[in-house]
Amino acid sequence: MTLPLRKTTEKLLMGPGPSNADQRVLRAMSEPMIGHLDPDFLGIMNETRELLKYVFQTENELTMAMPGTGSAGMEAAWANTVLPEMKVIICVHGVFGQRMTDVASRYGANVVVVGSPMGRPIDPADLQKAIKDNPDAKVVGIVHAETSTGVLQPLEEISKMVHEAGMFLLVDCVTSLGGVEVPVERLKFDMTYSGTQKCLNCPPGLAPLTVSPRMGEWISKREIPVKNWYLDLNMIMRYWGEDRFYHHTAPINMTYALNEALRIILEEGNEKRWERHWSNARIFWKVLEAMGLKPVVEEKYRLPSLTTYYTPEGVNEASVRKYLMDKYSIEIGGGLGELKGKIHRVGLMGVNSNPAKMALLTVALCDAFNAHGYKCDTGAALEVLSAR
Amino acid sequence: MTLPLRKTTEKLLMGPGPSNADQRVLRAMSEPMIGHLDPDFLGIMNETRELLKYVFQTENELTMAMPGTGSAGMEAAWANTVLPEMKVIICVHGVFGQRMTDVASRYGANVVVVGSPMGRPIDPADLQKAIKDNPDAKVVGIVHAETSTGVLQPLEEISKMVHEAGMFLLVDCVTSLGGVEVPVERLKFDMTYSGTQKCLNCPPGLAPLTVSPRMGEWISKREIPVKNWYLDLNMIMRYWGEDRFYHHTAPINMTYALNEALRIILEEGNEKRWERHWSNARIFWKVLEAMGLKPVVEEKYRLPSLTTYYTPEGVNEASVRKYLMDKYSIEIGGGLGELKGKIHRVGLMGVNSNPAKMALLTVALCDAFNAHGYKCDTGAALEVLSAR
Repeated sequence: MTLPLRKTTEKLLMGPGPSNADQRVLRAMSEPMIGHLDPDFLGIMNETRELLKYVFQTENELTMAMPGTGSAGMEAAWANTVLPEMKVIICVHGVFGQRMTDVASRYGANVVVVGSPMGRPIDPADLQKAIKDNPDAKVVGIVHAETSTGVLQPLEEISKMVHEAGMFLLVDCVTSLGGVEVPVERLKFDMTYSGTQKCLNCPPGLAPLTVSPRMGEWISKREIPVKNWYLDLNMIMRYWGEDRFYHHTAPINMTYALNEALRIILEEGNEKRWERHWSNARIFWKVLEAMGLKPVVEEKYRLPSLTTYYTPEGVNEASVRKYLMDKYSIEIGGGLGELKGKIHRVGLMGVNSNPAKMALLTVALCDAFNAHGYKCDTGAALEVLSAR
Repeated sequence: MTLPLRKTTEKLLMGPGPSNADQRVLRAMSEPMIGHLDPDFLGIMNETRELLKYVFQTENELTMAMPGTGSAGMEAAWANTVLPEMKVIICVHGVFGQRMTDVASRYGANVVVVGSPMGRPIDPADLQKAIKDNPDAKVVGIVHAETSTGVLQPLEEISKMVHEAGMFLLVDCVTSLGGVEVPVERLKFDMTYSGTQKCLNCPPGLAPLTVSPRMGEWISKREIPVKNWYLDLNMIMRYWGEDRFYHHTAPINMTYALNEALRIILEEGNEKRWERHWSNARIFWKVLEAMGLKPVVEEKYRLPSLTTYYTPEGVNEASVRKYLMDKYSIEIGGGLGELKGKIHRVGLMGVNSNPAKMALLTVALCDAFNAHGYKCDTGAALEVLSAR
C-alpha cells in the first residue's frame, strides 16, 4: 500500500512563525538517534545549555529546553511559579499576554490585569499603579515581543519597579530570542522562555527556558508540588543537571536541531545578529511606507522580527495572503483577535531577515496588492531596498 | 567560531527506548518546514490522524498527536480526566503505574492504588475488590505494557469489570503501540496514549492519544477548566478538528516523522507486525534460556517488545552494558526503582525486532557476559536463532 507523497514543498515562511528552518538545522535533525541518557547525548545537552546561556546572555545554571513548543514554555513558567490563590500581575498588550492570564488562572492564580490598547506597549505608569495597589502580588508577567501586534515592549523601567517591589519578573521572549536582545541578566528577568520556530530558525518542538537563581531557589522550596508533572522544574532540573535523574525522554533529534540553530547564532554573534535584524527591518518599514501602508505600531515600539501593517480599506486581506501563497509560495500572517481581517503580520526572522527575501517579498506584495485593486508602485518600493 | 562535531554516531538502540528511528523517518523529519496552518500541513495532520486510528484500531474521532513526549500523553490523559477530589483507581505494577499516581494526584485526584509485585501483572480479582470498595471512583488507570518490568497486562477481564462499574478505562500503551495489539475499540479503552520512540521507531517528541466518544463528551462538559492549558483537549480537539482553531504550533517536522513511521506500519500491516514481534521475541526468549539467564516475567505475561532478565549473581550489570556500548555500540537498559542493578531490559521494537539485530545482540551479550566471568556458550545461543 502506498499513500501519495507528503506535500512538503518548500515555501518562504515570512509570517509570525514558524519561520524557515536553516538547512543545517534540518540536516542536524536527521542525524542518527542515540539514547537520551547516552553520555554523548548528555554532552549535547550540556553544550546546548551553554549555547542557550549565550543567546539568553545569562549565567543562570537553570537554563534548558523544555520538551514542548513555545506554549509549553509559557505553561512551565506559570505552573512552576504559581501557588493556589497567589496574586500575580499580568500585563496584557496582545493575545499572548491574554493567554498568560488563562494559563496562570488554571494554576489557581488571582490575576490582576494591566492592559494597553492593541498595538501599544504597556505604560510603566499603569504597572506602577498596579504594583502599588497590589503589594501582595508575587509575580509580574509580561510579553517582550507581542507576536499578535508587533510591539517590542521596553523593559528597563518595568524591571526596576518590579524588583523594587520585591516581585519576580516573568518574561515571554518567544518572538524576540535570537532576533533582538533578550537581556536576561542585565534586566534581571527571573523566568524567561522562548520557542524554537521564530528567530532561531528551528522547527517547533522545544521551549528554551532560563530561571534566575533567586526564582530557582523559590521553586525548589515550594511546599505544594508543581501542579504539572511533565513540566515540573524541580524534576527537570535534575534531568538536565549533574545527577541525570530520569524524568521524561528528551526530544532527541529536536535537541540536535536546536543545538545546530544555536551554533549558527554563536557563529554570527549575538550583536551582529541583532544589528542585522534591526537594519533590515528599518529598510523594510521604509518599503511599506513607499507602498503607502500604515504601520500598526509606532516606530519606537516596533519589533524588528515581526512587522505589522493595516491592510488598505476595501482589500480582502486573506485573499492577498492566498495570492502570495498560490503564486509565490510565500506565507505571511493575518491578524489575531480584534485585529483579525485588518492587518498583516510579516516576519523577518533569522535567515529570513535578508535582502534577497525582502526583495522577493516586496515584488510579491506589490503584485498581490495591485491584483486586489490597491495600487503599489513596485519600482518605487524596490528603490528603497537598493538605496543606501 | 566552530564547535566540535556533534557526537551522533549511529548506535543500535535495544534498550527500553528510544529505539532506532527508521531511516525513512529521519529523512521525513528533514523535509522542508511549511506553516502549521498551511492547507498542506492540515492535510498531513488529517492523514496522520487516520493512520493513528488504524494503528490504535479505532474509529475515535478524537485521535491526535499531543505536542510532547509519551510522558506528555500521560499528563494529558490525567489532566483532562481528573476533577479536584475525584476518586480514581490506579493499578501499579511498575514504575509507570507509580508515576500515574503522582500525575493524577497533582490534579487533585484521590488515588486508590491496586498493586502487584514487581514483574507480575495486576490480578483482576484485586481490581474487582477495589472497584467494589470504591464504587464512587470515576476512572481506572492501568499500564498495558510496563516498560520497567516487561509485563504485558491482560486487559479483557479488567475492561469488562471497569465498564460494568460505569467507570472510564485509561490505558498507557507507550511500549505496546506498534508492537503488540492495542485493542482500543474492542476492549473499550476510553483514554489511550502512547509515545513515538518505542515500537513506532520515530524520535521522541509526540504522544499519540485517542479518546472514546463517551470520554470526549465527558471532557467537553467539564464545568471546571482543565488545569493545564497546553494539554487541554477541549482546545486541542478544535486545532485538530474542522475549525483549525489556533492553539499551539504543532511540532511540524516531528509530525512528518510520525506520519512516515505510521505509513511504514500501514505498509507492513498491523497483524503482520504484531506477529513479527511475537515470533522474534519467542526466539529471543529461548536464546536467553540457552544462556542460562532467568526471566523476570512468567512467559504468559511477557511483553514481546521488551524483554527483562535477571543478571547473574556477582556480575556488575552496569559494567556489562558499558562493555556492549564501548565494543559494539549497542545500548540495552538496566533496571528502574527496586530492580535497579538487578536486571537488564532489552527492546525488540519495530525495526529492531529483526533476526540480524538479534544475532548481533546475542553475540555481543555472550561476549560481554563471558568477559564478566559469567560463562555463556555463544554457539549454543546462536543455534537457537537458526533453529526452525
